[in-house]
Amino acid sequence: MSMQPVLINGSWRTPENPIDTFQAVDPAKKEVLPEIYPVSSSEDVDEILAAGSEAAAQLRKLPSQKVADFLEKFADNIEGRAGELVEWANRETALPEEPRLGTVELPRTTNQLRQAAAATRDRSWCLATIDTGTNIRSKYGPLGGAVAVFGPNNFPFAFNSCAGGDFAAAIAAGNPVIAKANTGHPGTTRIFAEAAFEAVEATGLPKAMVQLVYRLKPAEGFKLVSHPQIGATGFTGSKWAGIRLKEAADKAGKPIYLEMSSVNPVFVLPGVLRERSAEVAAELFGSCSLGAGQFCTNPGLVVVQAGPESETFINQVAELFAANAPGALLGKNGPRDIADAIGVLTKHGAEVVTGGEVADGPSYAFKNTVLRTSGDAFIDNPDALQTEAFGTVALIVFAKDVAQMQAVAASMEGNLTGGLYSHSGGDDDDIYNQVEPVLRQKVGRLLNDKMPTGVAVVPSMNHGGPYPATGHPGFTAVGIPASMLRFGALHCYDNVRAHRLPAELRDKNPTGSVWRFVDGTWTQGDVGVK
Amino acid sequence: MSMQPVLINGSWRTPENPIDTFQAVDPAKKEVLPEIYPVSSSEDVDEILAAGSEAAAQLRKLPSQKVADFLEKFADNIEGRAGELVEWANRETALPEEPRLGTVELPRTTNQLRQAAAATRDRSWCLATIDTGTNIRSKYGPLGGAVAVFGPNNFPFAFNSCAGGDFAAAIAAGNPVIAKANTGHPGTTRIFAEAAFEAVEATGLPKAMVQLVYRLKPAEGFKLVSHPQIGATGFTGSKWAGIRLKEAADKAGKPIYLEMSSVNPVFVLPGVLRERSAEVAAELFGSCSLGAGQFCTNPGLVVVQAGPESETFINQVAELFAANAPGALLGKNGPRDIADAIGVLTKHGAEVVTGGEVADGPSYAFKNTVLRTSGDAFIDNPDALQTEAFGTVALIVFAKDVAQMQAVAASMEGNLTGGLYSHSGGDDDDIYNQVEPVLRQKVGRLLNDKMPTGVAVVPSMNHGGPYPATGHPGFTAVGIPASMLRFGALHCYDNVRAHRLPAELRDKNPTGSVWRFVDGTWTQGDVGVK
Repeated sequence: MSMQPVLINGSWRTPENPIDTFQAVDPAKKEVLPEIYPVSSSEDVDEILAAGSEAAAQLRKLPSQKVADFLEKFADNIEGRAGELVEWANRETALPEEPRLGTVELPRTTNQLRQAAAATRDRSWCLATIDTGTNIRSKYGPLGGAVAVFGPNNFPFAFNSCAGGDFAAAIAAGNPVIAKANTGHPGTTRIFAEAAFEAVEATGLPKAMVQLVYRLKPAEGFKLVSHPQIGATGFTGSKWAGIRLKEAADKAGKPIYLEMSSVNPVFVLPGVLRERSAEVAAELFGSCSLGAGQFCTNPGLVVVQAGPESETFINQVAELFAANAPGALLGKNGPRDIADAIGVLTKHGAEVVTGGEVADGPSYAFKNTVLRTSGDAFIDNPDALQTEAFGTVALIVFAKDVAQMQAVAASMEGNLTGGLYSHSGGDDDDIYNQVEPVLRQKVGRLLNDKMPTGVAVVPSMNHGGPYPATGHPGFTAVGIPASMLRFGALHCYDNVRAHRLPAELRDKNPTGSVWRFVDGTWTQGDVGVK
Repeated sequence: MSMQPVLINGSWRTPENPIDTFQAVDPAKKEVLPEIYPVSSSEDVDEILAAGSEAAAQLRKLPSQKVADFLEKFADNIEGRAGELVEWANRETALPEEPRLGTVELPRTTNQLRQAAAATRDRSWCLATIDTGTNIRSKYGPLGGAVAVFGPNNFPFAFNSCAGGDFAAAIAAGNPVIAKANTGHPGTTRIFAEAAFEAVEATGLPKAMVQLVYRLKPAEGFKLVSHPQIGATGFTGSKWAGIRLKEAADKAGKPIYLEMSSVNPVFVLPGVLRERSAEVAAELFGSCSLGAGQFCTNPGLVVVQAGPESETFINQVAELFAANAPGALLGKNGPRDIADAIGVLTKHGAEVVTGGEVADGPSYAFKNTVLRTSGDAFIDNPDALQTEAFGTVALIVFAKDVAQMQAVAASMEGNLTGGLYSHSGGDDDDIYNQVEPVLRQKVGRLLNDKMPTGVAVVPSMNHGGPYPATGHPGFTAVGIPASMLRFGALHCYDNVRAHRLPAELRDKNPTGSVWRFVDGTWTQGDVGVK
């Protein structure tokens, strides 16, 4: 099998002597796949950065609707290759072809791209702000360099570095993208890059608008995110890798947005347990086992108040976890990583109620696992007991009273989400009012009577949260247009002559419908017209 | 003279055995001032952080209009002590009582506080976003801990850590403030803290809403900005200190906003030099000598195209710089720091045209200085030739052609501002169109035919820019409401019952006039009402 090509500055290149190579694995069969992928060199990174920077400069001269055209054409191209994409992603990740890949994740991905295109056409995302008294005008504009995107293993489509949410947001905000494939699904990513590059050519965008590498040694990764020619970085993946990239980017003053880890605590209050314990148990199992538990928003930590109802609840939960076969994991490290995480939990006072072992079978799998511990133990070792097990694993914490539920919440790290299940009437209102203020500050998205795994692509979504869930509590990775602001620089124009202003900042509203903040009022009108 | 008290958790405390002490200096007289200020200990920092965190939790339970009441009461209190503030600030900084301190900076400061109060009452700053189809709602909310503010030496009022722009923005966004006084004007800052604390008590806010320390050893500074209980940090000051604090905060994943250094390049294009060279020279001198050149937005770097007109221009500039007496500098290190910076410039090929020496006299001063260098020299050593001299010092770069002007712009670091002076007709349009795209990506605020020192407090202002001017290109330190977003966390509510939502996210518009982004449209209406 010949070496797979990378996409650098508009050409697909098959390196003759790469510095190293790797192969992906079919996790459903535990088989190494035949395609050989190159590890890219420092020289490749230099060339990619220079080309990305040049593309950024060229792009600024083109009308923004060409970017929208590209995003839509790319979405069409993806649909044209849907069968191939689903087949490859299934082969590389073991995620089910249906409904997950074909019916859920692929349409979500093209929908994101089309929403991004619509935002680019609409232009309101850039928050054009005009003060007529001083003739000072500002808006968000592109970063002046390409955006590096590192995608995770668990969403081969919707968070793919060459098609997913960060890709769409970075492009829609007017930046080229340098995609670093997740090494779990390089073949899937290559198809996306082909479909994207065809759309680049069809719509006349700069040829380095989309570039692709499969793997970098750590030093090259650090160089990429910290280089003067990079605009910013979007990273979704492990805390271990994310923190190292963050350090490199931070040191150079380059923005980096990371989505790293989260145990997504769910507080199940006493009233709702009395009311509908079995239902909540079923919702927990459904959410926790989605994608074999490999969701960033997987509910891995549940907090209840100790008592007979919560004993019933954990039995109901454990029964469901035990009765269902575990799903196939994404890669060969999955079972070991889950076992390691459970090892940390049990070492610090958690007990396995069910599961806790690698599952036999043709694919990589780990038995669905429920653990329990006390509020006292949790507060003694909050860091260890928040260890994320990336699978269908839930740790249930039994707090002795409401004060201890508060203390458990207070000892938590930043999370993407946090939830409170409460009685349908007012029975849990007092406890809710005591726990919610503490939990609120620890999470990006607060849920009520709902499990966290669904992440709707709507403007109000926050797929973000305080560190270490992400690197900054003010940004979201999902939800257009907000996610685009991560990849914008605030550009102010002071006393600049009218014909030299970007269209969005001229007196005349460029489309007749751009929302702009003019003299303190949001309006779609022209400046000077009441 | 007895030890001056710090303000910790609502009490003014005079430490009996501080770990160290310092005194400020009257720079106009080169005299050490008699008041003795304590350096605060690690234990003090622990107590301040805990109190700030507790105040943040209490604050969330209070109606936001109380915060607005506080900001307005504080502005009133400042006006009530205006004479005293002007006198102290003049004594500690040598900035003129009139018009600078009394007529310009003090009203600007109270105006900022009142604008912040208005934004708090208005509530539109929080960007409430509601999607009715999914019942997901989000807005910016407080950070859950106090904001540490480090103020600079050059604006004892408008950027004071206990009264200035960062203070106003952090408080208005719903966070307590821990003020670290600039050690150049601790007495001025103490008066602000007194006036603020009186307003805290008068309006019933948590007693640790405003706390004050004067000085910290580096280790305590790092602890403050990186502590789990801190919300975020706003820093204005030297690059040297800023970068160290940034490293500590970044490592802990705590937001830090820095405004560090900028030479604010101004490109004076050939056409405008032919048209009105003397006028531009006068504008340059006026802007560059404002506040004795000690403005973050001071135009320290001018780029012209070599030729007879630019030789005339530099002579006009040099004449004005030489003919005017230098202003008093803010502190005793001023003359030495300027001399050091000029030493770096001349070592890398710049020549002194006028000035270049410490000025004799009763106050700390340095002669107004003009330097020149070639575009070739600049491109060879762009870092060294962008060394900021914090005084009335301008380096004029003679580029040999337009391509070299572009190259000079391309070799620049991030700056707060960048400007282009151009012919009043179209004579400079071609050059403008070649230089502007390069400069645009290097600066936060782009000016046309205007010097950069004026920083209007309007919503469209961007007092920010790419690193190392600041730590992130997407935020502004001046301009309400945008500056408040630095001190907000994105809080999303998913399926949360109506009565548990913050008022800004309920169906009914809480004031009838909050701007909210509902189902993709900005509206002041109630949800569900077209």
